[in-house]
Amino acid sequence: MTSPLERFYSVIPAGGIGSRLWPLSRADAPKFLHDLTGSGSTLLRATWDRLAPLSGEQRIMVVTGRAHRAAVETQLPDLADHNVVLESDPRDSSAAIGLAAAILVNREPDVIIGSFAADHVIRGDRLFRAAVTQAVATADAGYITAIGIQPTEPAIGFGYIHSGSPLDITGAESALLVDSFVEKPNLATAKKYVSGGAHLWNAGMFISRADVLLEELKRNQPELHAGLVELASVWDDPATRGPAVDRIWPTLTKIAIDYSVAEPAAAAGRLAVVPGHFDWDDVGDFASLAKLNSGGRKTDLAILGENARVLSDASSGIVVSQSNRVISLIGVKDIVVVDTPDALLVTTSANAQRVKSVVDALKLSGRDDVL
Amino acid sequence: MTSPLERFYSVIPAGGIGSRLWPLSRADAPKFLHDLTGSGSTLLRATWDRLAPLSGEQRIMVVTGRAHRAAVETQLPDLADHNVVLESDPRDSSAAIGLAAAILVNREPDVIIGSFAADHVIRGDRLFRAAVTQAVATADAGYITAIGIQPTEPAIGFGYIHSGSPLDITGAESALLVDSFVEKPNLATAKKYVSGGAHLWNAGMFISRADVLLEELKRNQPELHAGLVELASVWDDPATRGPAVDRIWPTLTKIAIDYSVAEPAAAAGRLAVVPGHFDWDDVGDFASLAKLNSGGRKTDLAILGENARVLSDASSGIVVSQSNRVISLIGVKDIVVVDTPDALLVTTSANAQRVKSVVDALKLSGRDDVL
Repeated sequence: MTSPLERFYSVIPAGGIGSRLWPLSRADAPKFLHDLTGSGSTLLRATWDRLAPLSGEQRIMVVTGRAHRAAVETQLPDLADHNVVLESDPRDSSAAIGLAAAILVNREPDVIIGSFAADHVIRGDRLFRAAVTQAVATADAGYITAIGIQPTEPAIGFGYIHSGSPLDITGAESALLVDSFVEKPNLATAKKYVSGGAHLWNAGMFISRADVLLEELKRNQPELHAGLVELASVWDDPATRGPAVDRIWPTLTKIAIDYSVAEPAAAAGRLAVVPGHFDWDDVGDFASLAKLNSGGRKTDLAILGENARVLSDASSGIVVSQSNRVISLIGVKDIVVVDTPDALLVTTSANAQRVKSVVDALKLSGRDDVL
Repeated sequence: MTSPLERFYSVIPAGGIGSRLWPLSRADAPKFLHDLTGSGSTLLRATWDRLAPLSGEQRIMVVTGRAHRAAVETQLPDLADHNVVLESDPRDSSAAIGLAAAILVNREPDVIIGSFAADHVIRGDRLFRAAVTQAVATADAGYITAIGIQPTEPAIGFGYIHSGSPLDITGAESALLVDSFVEKPNLATAKKYVSGGAHLWNAGMFISRADVLLEELKRNQPELHAGLVELASVWDDPATRGPAVDRIWPTLTKIAIDYSVAEPAAAAGRLAVVPGHFDWDDVGDFASLAKLNSGGRKTDLAILGENARVLSDASSGIVVSQSNRVISLIGVKDIVVVDTPDALLVTTSANAQRVKSVVDALKLSGRDDVL
């Protein structure tokens, strides 16, 4: 019998644009295609490099939009053709991850899959691998398994996982049963969570047997499940895949996997969590990006951009430069300046969450050229 | 005998870069070559158009740097060759205006000259002409004559002229003797000046007989005067002008005409002032520019730029756009954003005076490409 990790397959949904990072992130240059840490790697490539030692490069599937195929293949030259799943339009994470599960379970009935967003930043690869390895063992025992991040501060921008009793699983000493998911809390509640020790950040990483995931999905979203199973049944036949995608994909319910699988599984006592002690950030907005790039010091201006030429007396905030223009800041605090060839954003860290509203306004006013 | 106005000659020193308006103003695109009001005219062209009805187009002399000759001639196609005075390097206003005076007095001994900066904004042409006409009459009576602007607010960014007794000059009913010049005051003092009624803004406009001006200059700056007279004596001979410029110009003292002529003349009772009731602004920085372009409303974001595409919730400040990039501002107040093809400035109205320090820093760090 093979070990659980030998049956492990990584799935990378590479879908979201990251509108809160406009004008850096665009429809044709989504967040996962950017290097947001100055590491020299795009977030997608870094995700691949983190997973390859766990599942092997031949066992990483990427689910992405048709428009991004070329860019994804440039980033990941070793990505096998049969591991590319192209969406004709985005239909949220249940469809993306569910389809990957349905395709893989047909090829390999006892496969264990783990889904990892293409656009998060993780530091501490050894700790990451340790957590995933425990999660794979937990998944092999039949649990849908989240990796929950040990909170380092009372963040109000993340959802939390309330953990319960320890599970007694070989190779997964720190696995816990999940009591419930908690939506983004207020600051007072977040502080209680952090001091209490039972709450972990929900990083949206789920590891499970593919058949277990599909069973849970069938229970909660039977139509979505049926569509995915039908699509998967013809997927590996090039002659029938295309028409089936055209017919079925547009009918699939758009729903996050948190709601279609994770929360119902938690309520039914079928969800486990393995605490992760690595650094994790979903880089949700420019305030996060500033923090991520200021080396943790609140009094530094973060500068992102290979050819950035910044002249500044600003003591905080971030400059993202995609040009070689001289950027000069005088007497501004907590500023966010994002300088791209066709669009410029000026805001403050405190207003970073409102960037999405600009994207909405640009859509409404028909300025699709800069979206 | 000709009327004073028939002997009037306009002199436009077009020299200063306007460093406080960087990166809009540059060494090769100084302030006077910009349209700062959205009128469709550059400040230089507007100055010409304002003076032409007074002196006639054939009697406007422009003193500018060699580097700006082509741009100036494009702006002013009717500028006669013999009315162009080119400086090999900037040597401040005494040299520029003094040389114009020395050249013109040789051609026309009883000429009355008036000097008007190329980069100020004036609104109210009829009132401007009325003031200049009175100033020309006052100059004809032997006074060096300033046009002082009736203050509309207790500005602390301008110097003031303290006016004294009325002069009894035909055709110059509002001319007054000048008591003294006052440097930029603090706010309390400025408020007293405005309520007192005897103080006018010094707009740097001086009208006088050329010979009277040169006499005053000789008294206070004999070496500078001697150099200018020598230079002027060969000016109209193309064979000798060049070598004389190369030899003499670099030796001339750099001093503002306020110090070499106006202040000593005031102290000696030889300076008059005619109050001007037109709107005047020297557009010294982006805060002034914002005010000038917000229609006087403090709660409007001013936008300058033909192709500006601005999406903003900012309620004050200014955006200057020299590109057709989309510029988006979120949650920023009193912001100054100046977007040019190779340089970007982000600051606030309160920090507008500090822009010059950026230019100094860029010089020091050798980034002359954007100066």
